[in-house]
Amino acid sequence: MPSFKINVLGCGSALPTSHHLPSAQIVEVRGKLILLDCGEGVQLQLRNRHLNLMRISHIFITHAHGDHCFGLPGLLSTFSLLGRKTPLHIFAPATLQPFFDCIFRDFCYGIQYEVTFTPLDSEQRQSIFECQSFRVTSLPLRHRVPCCGYLIEEQPSLPHIIPEMIAAYDIPHWAISNIKAGADWTSADGSVIAHEQLTRPADPPCRYAYCTDTLPNPELPAWIEGVDMLYHEATYADADMSKAVLVGHSTARQAAAIARDANAGRLLIGHFSARYSDESILLREAQEIFPATDLAFEGQEVALRV
Amino acid sequence: MPSFKINVLGCGSALPTSHHLPSAQIVEVRGKLILLDCGEGVQLQLRNRHLNLMRISHIFITHAHGDHCFGLPGLLSTFSLLGRKTPLHIFAPATLQPFFDCIFRDFCYGIQYEVTFTPLDSEQRQSIFECQSFRVTSLPLRHRVPCCGYLIEEQPSLPHIIPEMIAAYDIPHWAISNIKAGADWTSADGSVIAHEQLTRPADPPCRYAYCTDTLPNPELPAWIEGVDMLYHEATYADADMSKAVLVGHSTARQAAAIARDANAGRLLIGHFSARYSDESILLREAQEIFPATDLAFEGQEVALRV
Repeated sequence: MPSFKINVLGCGSALPTSHHLPSAQIVEVRGKLILLDCGEGVQLQLRNRHLNLMRISHIFITHAHGDHCFGLPGLLSTFSLLGRKTPLHIFAPATLQPFFDCIFRDFCYGIQYEVTFTPLDSEQRQSIFECQSFRVTSLPLRHRVPCCGYLIEEQPSLPHIIPEMIAAYDIPHWAISNIKAGADWTSADGSVIAHEQLTRPADPPCRYAYCTDTLPNPELPAWIEGVDMLYHEATYADADMSKAVLVGHSTARQAAAIARDANAGRLLIGHFSARYSDESILLREAQEIFPATDLAFEGQEVALRV
Repeated sequence: MPSFKINVLGCGSALPTSHHLPSAQIVEVRGKLILLDCGEGVQLQLRNRHLNLMRISHIFITHAHGDHCFGLPGLLSTFSLLGRKTPLHIFAPATLQPFFDCIFRDFCYGIQYEVTFTPLDSEQRQSIFECQSFRVTSLPLRHRVPCCGYLIEEQPSLPHIIPEMIAAYDIPHWAISNIKAGADWTSADGSVIAHEQLTRPADPPCRYAYCTDTLPNPELPAWIEGVDMLYHEATYADADMSKAVLVGHSTARQAAAIARDANAGRLLIGHFSARYSDESILLREAQEIFPATDLAFEGQEVALRV
């Protein structure tokens, strides 16, 4: 079964600090790279992490604040300079369209790859993309500007063949894909062996939710019920709750409550305010509600399945 | 006499590499910071170099290619987040106006500092700014798009008082600024001491020219005659001359010829193509023509006067 990995490229908030970069993550699903948000410096981060930026097929931007999209112009230009030919798909709230149009009109003349920009209605939870490997649902968030979270789900995979059974029944290689797809096996003497006997159940598909920037959204847990991991913004500690409400952000404790209510496998918190030089306060407050919480950090790689 | 320093923040070309960042420099003149070009990641570079970005008063952009301006959105946003109140002045070829308008329309609502954007005619050499500390002249360059180099000149300073002479003639403190400004001193007995006797000549003003991106421009040497230092792009080595002509860039040897013909004090070359993992070939070729050549590098600080 192929891996499903999250690479954190940046988990700071709007004000850059010496220890955090603006928002960006790479999700690796069955060999494809998905970019979530694109803060300034993403292409350098990709290079430093030895992630091949040419393998990025889809970009999902949460909202039109600079710390989530100012790396886009540089990345799109670099794709062009590197001679990219494969199509690129960008999804974002419709409010990002003018910025996108400006980049393309003024800086991307002569590009040789096709780019589709899909403007999203950030008020609607909707299935926005599906391919053989994964599907993506947009999640309405509650920020100062239109903002979408994203639920990324692997497509169900086929069951595993049990090699010992295949050998025992002397089943030829050509029959295996049929059996994995659900066909029973009829042997030379006419006896039928049910495919369930020849296979083990498929691994459950990995599911990952990326939710930033937002006030706590009480609808969110139902939408992401049982995800393997939730990344949720936790810009502030409890003591700064009034500030959080004012600027449309969550506290670490609120992020943890969302993870608990969603029965998430684990929680990764990020989008830390620059006011915390030590984020352990955020971790402690979140873990009081949801113990399986970790702090995000630049360079972090989390494998939901190795 | 105050210092005049150049800090190289980035000296790569369009394609980012692991060893170079896109174009940007800080020029420090009498305590003021001037930013020349603003490639992606400038604000992080400033932070890492402990340069106080709030002291930047003027930004001069050479042209509307991403590797010279994609750091601008993030920097302007950060000024706003940090509560900047002091005015900011940006100068660039008029072709950068739509990008600038887009940033301000979509990302800079609620900013509390005044920004003036002065669109330049890149075909005209003209005096574009002057204050008590320095003056700036735009220099038409020859690139694929409208492009300006910049000549930054300190204003002439006052002569130095000779302390021993002041003591010998028992000249009071209040008279010193007049003497520096050119007044003679009349002592109690009516004798006149010429101000030239009481002072040493002022240090000559520092002059620095920043010229990127460009084909070699034969008019340039006369415009920058006798500069203390020239930064000139040297994207390619001699062997890649045909490529240089095609894309509107210079070779290291051509940059050196400009410095020689301008009687520059020294030459700094940069904007290196990503194809050279070792730029010593560029240095060798330039030094054959103009020995006082150095390679630019990220983190470099050059003091024209300490």
